[in-house]
Amino acid sequence: MPSRSDSEDPRLGDLSEGRILREILSRTAPGAHTILGPGDDAAVIAAPSGSVVATTDTLVHGPDFRLAWTSGYDLGWKSAAVNLADIAAMGARPTALLVALAVPRDLPLSFVERLADGFREACAALAPGCAVVGGDLTVSDVLTVAVTALGDLEGRAPVTRSGARPGDVVAVAGELGLAARGLAVLFGRFRADGSPVPVRAEALAPGESAAVAAQLRPSPPIGLGTAAAVAGATAMMDVSDGLALDAVRLADASGVTLSLDRAALGDDPPRALGGGEDHALLATFPEGVLAPGFRVIGRVHERSQAPVLCDGVPVAPEGWDPYRDWDSAAG
Amino acid sequence: MPSRSDSEDPRLGDLSEGRILREILSRTAPGAHTILGPGDDAAVIAAPSGSVVATTDTLVHGPDFRLAWTSGYDLGWKSAAVNLADIAAMGARPTALLVALAVPRDLPLSFVERLADGFREACAALAPGCAVVGGDLTVSDVLTVAVTALGDLEGRAPVTRSGARPGDVVAVAGELGLAARGLAVLFGRFRADGSPVPVRAEALAPGESAAVAAQLRPSPPIGLGTAAAVAGATAMMDVSDGLALDAVRLADASGVTLSLDRAALGDDPPRALGGGEDHALLATFPEGVLAPGFRVIGRVHERSQAPVLCDGVPVAPEGWDPYRDWDSAAG
Repeated sequence: MPSRSDSEDPRLGDLSEGRILREILSRTAPGAHTILGPGDDAAVIAAPSGSVVATTDTLVHGPDFRLAWTSGYDLGWKSAAVNLADIAAMGARPTALLVALAVPRDLPLSFVERLADGFREACAALAPGCAVVGGDLTVSDVLTVAVTALGDLEGRAPVTRSGARPGDVVAVAGELGLAARGLAVLFGRFRADGSPVPVRAEALAPGESAAVAAQLRPSPPIGLGTAAAVAGATAMMDVSDGLALDAVRLADASGVTLSLDRAALGDDPPRALGGGEDHALLATFPEGVLAPGFRVIGRVHERSQAPVLCDGVPVAPEGWDPYRDWDSAAG
Repeated sequence: MPSRSDSEDPRLGDLSEGRILREILSRTAPGAHTILGPGDDAAVIAAPSGSVVATTDTLVHGPDFRLAWTSGYDLGWKSAAVNLADIAAMGARPTALLVALAVPRDLPLSFVERLADGFREACAALAPGCAVVGGDLTVSDVLTVAVTALGDLEGRAPVTRSGARPGDVVAVAGELGLAARGLAVLFGRFRADGSPVPVRAEALAPGESAAVAAQLRPSPPIGLGTAAAVAGATAMMDVSDGLALDAVRLADASGVTLSLDRAALGDDPPRALGGGEDHALLATFPEGVLAPGFRVIGRVHERSQAPVLCDGVPVAPEGWDPYRDWDSAAG
């Protein structure tokens, strides 16, 4: 849809809630699972297999995204993607999103319009049939996007973090470390002197473009979550905080040790282990079983002292400071 | 549960996310509909009738609550209640809540512990069987509680806003204007000079206590939502923004005019019409039908120029400024 010129782009604080909601809702698309969509006290979504999978994840301006380099479209896309990935990680098919927006009064209308576009197009690209079915709009000094995603297990049991068994293979689908590389590019190239610089695509080398795109508009392998479940994955989770940390979580939940093969972690194993936000799927499968799109990166063993080893060496996960280089005035 | 002394009450910014989540989750109770609770990428909730009702509503510090007079317990209770009311308003039974918390780093741990208590006890009191099944914790300069509620229709069709028909009666269950009276007490008595004063129960007259409780810890008639649906309600909604405004929404959605009887609106009809946040249920029923707990306040007519009349006079809904008297420094 065309974007507005500045003169036609009012601030949200000057508009009624009804007007803003009309603009947003005109950009949503109907979902295949939607029985009753936006406009009433609540939505109604099909849950054909008699249960519903539900998760919520919030993106807050500052710790979770920077407007210095994040557009409304990017924010909508990413808010959808990170929640869809949690549904996929249970082996479920995403059916619906609910979006609670808390917006500053001086935010331009075009920002939330593009945000709605990002939600719609992320659903279409990553989880066809899934759609925004409801939401909430309130004012806040801090731009906040709280999303709830729902999904259907299609009659299967959920694939939890606790089912990995010794003898299983460890496998991943999706990128490892690419989003972190993108964040490093953004911090290094576009905020070197402390002040934000708009990201210009022409200023990026080809490898950098893909990394920045993975950071701003991640494309987790949502459809492979159901594929893994159908193939017989014994455990699965979304890699949101880096492979090392999330592998520890899966190992602890299952009471096993994961032994990773460094050579299987690509050309930058430290980044693959430490970099978050790719939302790859980490899964374990019985020996001889592997879902399409997954690649083997290790083995499951009886629990030893360390929950995760890489080429036999215990892996020590590092934390990520969401407030790194954050200046609330600059955004 | 016992509260902590100040010396044992660390700030959230000094604790790990895992520690905070453990404290919160130790205060949640299992739900009758929970198949898989907190701890994995997503929860799984029973949806026995093959669909799920879903709604989201956010409370933001400032426009939606003031810490000057809202405790952690109050905030948890109210955040649960307002979302449960939206599920009830569809004629559904609440099955689960997901809670996305965005918290300032200097918030005391005890605040979120009491918030978890408020969620648990509101579910137990208002919607037995419903429980918190998942959530998200992030940092923000603005305390924000984004809740998603899920519900089950038990095989019935949802009761929407659009089904009111001429000849139906208009009825409500729950309070009208009491929460607004409570807010007036709080603004008038505890912030008269612009600075917040803690609410002391002994400083309130008996009538004021009930009004303040209705504002801080509303008890909408959640169970009467399913009762209305079973009895045959033709339309229903939650009265969150005042009867006048919400009645206009129902009238517009149904393409009818609602004619209210002023004498049925209690001892302060203007407050009953204008006061929000009671989360009463507004419903229409066929002539001769009324669910237990509902009282008749008017009639449905063919649409005339005004969507809502009170004793024959068109009702002009007033807006509510959520930033009234707001000072972000004082809270």
